Amino acid sequence: MSQTVSPPLYAAIDLGSNSFHMLVVRHIDGSVQTMAKIKRKVRLAAGLDENNALSTEAMQRGWDCLSLFAERLQDIPPENIRIVGTATLRTATNVDIFLKKANDILGQKINVISGEEEAATIYKGVAHTSGGSGRRLVVDIGGASTEVIIGEGFTAKALTSLKMGCVTWLERHFKDRQLNASNFDNAIEAAKATLSPILDNYNQLGWDVCVGASGTVQALQEIMLAQGMDEVITLTKLKRLQKQAMLAERLEELEIEGLTLERALVFPSGLSILIAIFESLKIESMTLAGGALREGLAYEMVDELRHDNIHNRTIASVQSRYQMDVEYGEQVATLSQNLLAQAGGDEWISEPQASVLLTTAAKLHEIGLTIDFKKGGEHGAYLLQNLDLPGFTRAQKFCLGEVVRRYREQLTSLPEQHAVSGTSSKRILRLLRLATLLTHRRNTQLEPQVSLEVNGDNLTLSISKQWLVDNPLTAAELEIEANRQSDIGWPLVINASE
Amino acid sequence: MSQTVSPPLYAAIDLGSNSFHMLVVRHIDGSVQTMAKIKRKVRLAAGLDENNALSTEAMQRGWDCLSLFAERLQDIPPENIRIVGTATLRTATNVDIFLKKANDILGQKINVISGEEEAATIYKGVAHTSGGSGRRLVVDIGGASTEVIIGEGFTAKALTSLKMGCVTWLERHFKDRQLNASNFDNAIEAAKATLSPILDNYNQLGWDVCVGASGTVQALQEIMLAQGMDEVITLTKLKRLQKQAMLAERLEELEIEGLTLERALVFPSGLSILIAIFESLKIESMTLAGGALREGLAYEMVDELRHDNIHNRTIASVQSRYQMDVEYGEQVATLSQNLLAQAGGDEWISEPQASVLLTTAAKLHEIGLTIDFKKGGEHGAYLLQNLDLPGFTRAQKFCLGEVVRRYREQLTSLPEQHAVSGTSSKRILRLLRLATLLTHRRNTQLEPQVSLEVNGDNLTLSISKQWLVDNPLTAAELEIEANRQSDIGWPLVINASE
Repeated sequence: MSQTVSPPLYAAIDLGSNSFHMLVVRHIDGSVQTMAKIKRKVRLAAGLDENNALSTEAMQRGWDCLSLFAERLQDIPPENIRIVGTATLRTATNVDIFLKKANDILGQKINVISGEEEAATIYKGVAHTSGGSGRRLVVDIGGASTEVIIGEGFTAKALTSLKMGCVTWLERHFKDRQLNASNFDNAIEAAKATLSPILDNYNQLGWDVCVGASGTVQALQEIMLAQGMDEVITLTKLKRLQKQAMLAERLEELEIEGLTLERALVFPSGLSILIAIFESLKIESMTLAGGALREGLAYEMVDELRHDNIHNRTIASVQSRYQMDVEYGEQVATLSQNLLAQAGGDEWISEPQASVLLTTAAKLHEIGLTIDFKKGGEHGAYLLQNLDLPGFTRAQKFCLGEVVRRYREQLTSLPEQHAVSGTSSKRILRLLRLATLLTHRRNTQLEPQVSLEVNGDNLTLSISKQWLVDNPLTAAELEIEANRQSDIGWPLVINASE
Repeated sequence: MSQTVSPPLYAAIDLGSNSFHMLVVRHIDGSVQTMAKIKRKVRLAAGLDENNALSTEAMQRGWDCLSLFAERLQDIPPENIRIVGTATLRTATNVDIFLKKANDILGQKINVISGEEEAATIYKGVAHTSGGSGRRLVVDIGGASTEVIIGEGFTAKALTSLKMGCVTWLERHFKDRQLNASNFDNAIEAAKATLSPILDNYNQLGWDVCVGASGTVQALQEIMLAQGMDEVITLTKLKRLQKQAMLAERLEELEIEGLTLERALVFPSGLSILIAIFESLKIESMTLAGGALREGLAYEMVDELRHDNIHNRTIASVQSRYQMDVEYGEQVATLSQNLLAQAGGDEWISEPQASVLLTTAAKLHEIGLTIDFKKGGEHGAYLLQNLDLPGFTRAQKFCLGEVVRRYREQLTSLPEQHAVSGTSSKRILRLLRLATLLTHRRNTQLEPQVSLEVNGDNLTLSISKQWLVDNPLTAAELEIEANRQSDIGWPLVINASE
């Protein structure tokens, strides 16, 4: 048994314009695991006067919060700590007074970073925690600044920090706390004006996918899930939420299913900025990033985690942490992809991410056995749906879990999910079940030659008659499997060929 | 990231009188993990004629089943395979004919073991998978034999295999399939007569705890859980089940909540034997063992797992597999026990197993964080309640899970559980919460000196005023904790001492 000693902890602290956050993590086998989170709503930006000086009260709120953080920092090696200040501390004319005492309290240096550094760190946090390939547009709406970045892999190509945020826009455009069209219009127009200088450059660079980070996008995601929508953010949905918000006259009456009290105050202003970004940059859809500034700081300290393919990094990390049989996972994944190719590849399962989900399910389908053999599929679903899996969205984790829940024995229809089409998820499951059944001896040498013919959802799997005679267990199980799939309306024929 | 290669598999095959079983496991970090189970009801015992010769049909059923097993054995190293035959193969006069072909099919040697060897292997399986200290009485009711063993730790002191089993007793005493008093009486009396030669010796040796293995006891456990009883088997419960069974006149009409169709046929005969054992040996209570013959075979191959304290072996294995912070677990466990001692030790929490549960919860409370920080307590409960934890009963796993579910943040009352009294489970939880809160910096040097005074369920925790001033985060959290515990009726006062 390998002896475990306390692994070192890392802390990332972000002194934001609305809240101060502390994130404590450890690094385990290719994964960053959260051990503690502390957050205090310090409302630093609200304490700036007309001359951009921080009030004594605001500074005191900040210092009080830092005393709490300081206690927790005592047991973390200094080289494993990163503390950054952002927009409000960049702006405050009396920042030196704040920092002097703050550094004393923490016993650590606070680094007030430029807008561009902030954007670069956010991009790292996104790149480490989000899947997908190609060029990426990243949007992070903070309390007093909004970062807009274009990058590819781990390299940022354009970094911008704009002086607008959900707190400053609240004070500027919803000062009377009215949720009427004119306030929204002003907020959106002002955001567009702020964005206008970067449009040419960003449009010219272009991007393939768009992800949003931070509280505003997180809150949107929660609202959409609570209201039964899928996780993809579109302009139509944003406009619908604006209408819902305007049903309340005043901000304090705002009620939207899925919106927490904590986010309500800055929700209309954040929404306005996001609408302006969608319209100005003509964004079609946006998904939520797995991390941003704090994650960027944390992953920066554990730089060995840099990996070109976040999906592969996540799969390898999970396999290692759960001590899974990696060779066998590879065997099942290879056969799954071979069967998919025979079925017609992307003619048969159209979404590119569906093929990624098939391979991921193939490599991780046995994860539930690490809890218990009994109900292994159920346990697998629980783990895949609840584990932090950088690179996979919530909808993808849900889909993976539902497929893995059914990888063996009884077969039931899949529930509705939003990662891929219903047809694709069904086909992923059918191929996975065949691939696990045909490889149950965990040895490529002992795997039969098979050929798969498809006609829509009618599958015919051919195996040599002699092989079936020589392998009665697999033959019996294939027969049962043909009945199980056919019984729920997914016709499968096993053909014993000469 | 550590590179994982396919770990070797082990197979344990048991050719029993009623069913043939194949168990495939792997050995991971101090745990035996089940990878596959195959079972076929071969009914070998039913194929013995009056001269104890196996019928051709029965042999053919056996050989057919072995061809299935043989396919699966191909990828398992021969030295990792154990195949044993038990009572019916011991008895059959024409066993050579069966074995010759059987060995050919399997390509491996079947070892027909004596009753005493069977009892010894069962005992190993129990010793490896059951907790508790002291002398242990083990009862395993098979199809054609019943093993009764007394042992301590890994050493058996008395090994007996009796020629009675749930299949033979069915054919002998319930041949007419009537569930009437006379059949039950005959079955019980005949079992007592079979037991009588061993009573003196067993009573003289004596025992502290009694565990039951195999299908009959497993079925009883499932019935009791389905009917909302606790997991401890007593004579009163067995008699109640006999009455329930007699409500059906004929065996095919038998319906008992929680009894599966598969076990129904041999349930009355197995129950009769168990009642006879309880009455003859004056057993007060019995719990279900975590394993028996097949587990004995499997653990025998991985002998390094022999460990004097199964609880500690299980905890260490879980900590290692989930890469937990072992030093921190030790810190929380030490403080928990220190607080318990101050509270009065077993005056305050009376059951000895409650103290084991407190230590186990302390060492494993962070296991849910390995899934995700969010809902860490929920994830911990899921894992502890579903993991195979040798040495812990189902009720104990349930209790551990409910305590760990609540180790931090919101506090709700504990549900009913059967591992310890409601008062004890509450007190375990209260101590665990205080211990995790006071140690949140994971460093014994930074842990405060505390003293705990109890008056029934009124707790007063004293800490020096200066320490609280120096540690404002802990101070704030202790205040919140005092409110949380007090709010649900568990008074807690934090006293700032000079």
